[in-house]
Amino acid sequence: MGYRIDALARLVEQFASLPGIGKKSAQRLAFHMLSLTREQAQQFAEAILEAHQKLKRCTVCQNLSEEEICPICSDEGRDRSLICVVEDPKDLLAFERTGEYRGLYHVLHGLLSPMAGIGPDQLTVKELLKRLGDGSVKEVVMATNPTVEGEATAMYLARLIKPMGVRVTRLAYGIPVGGNLEYADEVTLYRALEGRSEI
Amino acid sequence: MGYRIDALARLVEQFASLPGIGKKSAQRLAFHMLSLTREQAQQFAEAILEAHQKLKRCTVCQNLSEEEICPICSDEGRDRSLICVVEDPKDLLAFERTGEYRGLYHVLHGLLSPMAGIGPDQLTVKELLKRLGDGSVKEVVMATNPTVEGEATAMYLARLIKPMGVRVTRLAYGIPVGGNLEYADEVTLYRALEGRSEI
Repeated sequence: MGYRIDALARLVEQFASLPGIGKKSAQRLAFHMLSLTREQAQQFAEAILEAHQKLKRCTVCQNLSEEEICPICSDEGRDRSLICVVEDPKDLLAFERTGEYRGLYHVLHGLLSPMAGIGPDQLTVKELLKRLGDGSVKEVVMATNPTVEGEATAMYLARLIKPMGVRVTRLAYGIPVGGNLEYADEVTLYRALEGRSEI
Repeated sequence: MGYRIDALARLVEQFASLPGIGKKSAQRLAFHMLSLTREQAQQFAEAILEAHQKLKRCTVCQNLSEEEICPICSDEGRDRSLICVVEDPKDLLAFERTGEYRGLYHVLHGLLSPMAGIGPDQLTVKELLKRLGDGSVKEVVMATNPTVEGEATAMYLARLIKPMGVRVTRLAYGIPVGGNLEYADEVTLYRALEGRSEI
């Protein structure tokens, strides 16, 4: 209840609908938006609309792209025999930031989750299998998160892909670089021990 | 460096320019925005533009308003002899939420801050003094924040207003309701003691 300024209340509601933004933060953001110049506010609104209009899925790897085929898939310098399978575009960007990976990607846009009603048809599984048909891909790296859903999805895909004669690998488990052994959980420590390599 | 999708990067930058939103949160919000339907994204963008277009300052109390004179200032049921002076519209909304205050408001849109170059001319001091000219206002409550700038602004205004024959008061200091004495700072406790009342 209480006093309400409609246009302001609507803007606050919009911000409050964003993930991780509470009522108070939404109000703060709305007032900040009003403190901008008309031009700055317009740029903000346009960035939202532009992203929505321009970004579609790359027809090959399913990553967000402004073009039909994204710059990574059309980059002739990349290793076309290797595909890294990730849950979403955020993860792809994380790998690109390392600057070390030179293969291609495939974005699933989610993980299998029977509880949430997400099966293979809700993900881009069909598109992935189609890419493996011509024999040019030699290895698929499962780079889903080390969670229950991430593991289950990786296992499910591995079972489908292996019979096609393609090597399926998984990201290494271990202690994070710069991490502290003391704070590592048992499973991580055990996996780190298991995956030890010669120096 | 690294891989960059322009329309996405621009949206992330816009979110990262908001107060309290870091690079990671901005990316999360941008991806959330892309997960909305076209229509929902449009509503978000329109809420920003609409708020900017519709909201101006009430010519009387200087609060944000869609009308020339805001609903509070034009409400005949409110006590026109009492004005509560606040720093910004957020504080006005906080008072309205109590549902107890029945007087009018005056929004300063900031506090005096010589260090930041904010003097009386950057605030709505002139507009406040104009409202006190006709003798209808009997009391002005200073409801600025209990900070150095808030206190200084209240003192400055009190010195201007008292000679006009208008009573100037200050919000009570004390322990917050539901607060714990143990965690109250000394100044607050002292002020609470000083302002004690009979029960």
